Amino acid sequence: MTRKYAVIGTGAIGGYYGAMLQKAGFPVHFLLRSDYEIAHKQGLTVESVNGDFKLPKIAAYHNSKEMPVCDVIIVALKATQNHILSQILPPILHENSVIVLLQNGIDLEPQVAQIPGVKKVIGGLCSICCYKIAPASLQHLAYGQITLGEYRQNYQACGITPLLKAVSDDFQKAGIPIKTSPDLMYSRWQKLVWNIPYNSLSVILDATTAEIMENPASRQLVTEIMQEVLLGATATNRDIPDSFIQEMLSHTEKLETPYLTSMKLDYNARRPLEIEAILHNPLKIAQTAGIKLPKIQTLYAQLKFLRDRHCQNH
Amino acid sequence: MTRKYAVIGTGAIGGYYGAMLQKAGFPVHFLLRSDYEIAHKQGLTVESVNGDFKLPKIAAYHNSKEMPVCDVIIVALKATQNHILSQILPPILHENSVIVLLQNGIDLEPQVAQIPGVKKVIGGLCSICCYKIAPASLQHLAYGQITLGEYRQNYQACGITPLLKAVSDDFQKAGIPIKTSPDLMYSRWQKLVWNIPYNSLSVILDATTAEIMENPASRQLVTEIMQEVLLGATATNRDIPDSFIQEMLSHTEKLETPYLTSMKLDYNARRPLEIEAILHNPLKIAQTAGIKLPKIQTLYAQLKFLRDRHCQNH
Repeated sequence: MTRKYAVIGTGAIGGYYGAMLQKAGFPVHFLLRSDYEIAHKQGLTVESVNGDFKLPKIAAYHNSKEMPVCDVIIVALKATQNHILSQILPPILHENSVIVLLQNGIDLEPQVAQIPGVKKVIGGLCSICCYKIAPASLQHLAYGQITLGEYRQNYQACGITPLLKAVSDDFQKAGIPIKTSPDLMYSRWQKLVWNIPYNSLSVILDATTAEIMENPASRQLVTEIMQEVLLGATATNRDIPDSFIQEMLSHTEKLETPYLTSMKLDYNARRPLEIEAILHNPLKIAQTAGIKLPKIQTLYAQLKFLRDRHCQNH
Repeated sequence: MTRKYAVIGTGAIGGYYGAMLQKAGFPVHFLLRSDYEIAHKQGLTVESVNGDFKLPKIAAYHNSKEMPVCDVIIVALKATQNHILSQILPPILHENSVIVLLQNGIDLEPQVAQIPGVKKVIGGLCSICCYKIAPASLQHLAYGQITLGEYRQNYQACGITPLLKAVSDDFQKAGIPIKTSPDLMYSRWQKLVWNIPYNSLSVILDATTAEIMENPASRQLVTEIMQEVLLGATATNRDIPDSFIQEMLSHTEKLETPYLTSMKLDYNARRPLEIEAILHNPLKIAQTAGIKLPKIQTLYAQLKFLRDRHCQNH
């Protein structure tokens, strides 16, 4: 059986992975907003470090009611837009549809899982440098790996289920490097170890990751914030080893400079910031367990101030 | 006896208070750096909310070795320059000279008290809006009160000593509103309750006090940082009541808008920031007592990053 794919939110992430799947022969139905007209007429263009390609024709839609029901529904909206999913998803769901939520942050799956008709949710964490350079035109500069883990209620670990295996096999056939996670919650916390300090400080300090790493004070602060994330993870009984912090620091030092985080790119473009998913939800989880994360709390308050003053539609 | 005054650091603060003292008839000797030539030729000009005045002639010096010994030596340098005091002070000290240190922050007096020949130190905390608008020309916009307290080793409280009383009487004769403090350490912590959150956040968030107070997230963060300052004060066995936080918040809301903090003005002018005196010293004091102030630690690291990137001669 060839699974039928939908991409909800055809920006850089959704557009890139959807295009890769279509190029590999999977049927993909793309929901677009601002780029609908151009994508409908001209398809999608991908300039990639792994080789440029063009899809002259894609199945483009402006409204999910016109889309067919799909087997796998990739959600690649910004997490700040998840409130519209309860309208978008129901028309394209069948009994066995699975949602693949390609978003940063934590505690996003529970809300999606509650949408009528949603039975299965897989969470995905992307490590990719990919930008929209023009309408329906993407530039993929580096990386591309996705970590996928199936969501169960309360983030109970459930191993590598047949469904998760099937979806990741599809992605792998499409040339997308995939890691499967037996515990989505653990993987989400792991990703936060990087996302919380670098996304936050890049916006607050108006800095690249290289600048943050070069200054001893901010580098030390990153380390201390990472320690708070590890503490937060223990609120959900997930122990992440201290050595993971050193891995993340070394990894970041090897990034090509200057690297701007996704939150910084959003901030510069005055788009909404994913601070609820990336900072507020972890803070709430920790707080419920009686654990204080004062440095992350400081970052969150600072980001709210900056967002309220600078960004639109938040 | 009419006490002879010296002013070390004739910027906005030193210039204003020195000018007030000279206007009231006290002999005042001003040490200047960049403004020496103009002050020597034209004296000092003060545009004040309490009435403009001009001192056509002042005793201006470019080197303390040319100054007479003085009874009261007002130090109004930025705290970042205190390392030069061991050169400046000895030539103008006599057996009973007293240093009046008009600086923000904490733990500055011990270093000054150790300079050979220094016997007495009074600490002073100024609440004043006064700016240099041209060489040897100041604008005094609002406030002006100084809180004075005598320093004893390890900040032991020593009440209102005869020396403290005498100096504050002089200031009062010069029309300067004075509060005397029986416990300098307590007063320094009190001032930090305001200085730490507003100075730090105004620089980090590029914001006026009004903007900080209007946004619920930053206003809440200010409150939480103030609570950490109160916690820091307990490291030196000084309890500041919680109600003082509400006082400071209300006071700040009544400031004329937009109000830029002194650290923000320094930052905008790329001058060194007083972050050691205002943030690092309180952090060190708390740490020695085993007390963690994680939010202030976050601010300090962020400010070090911003200072290193933006400011000169730090």
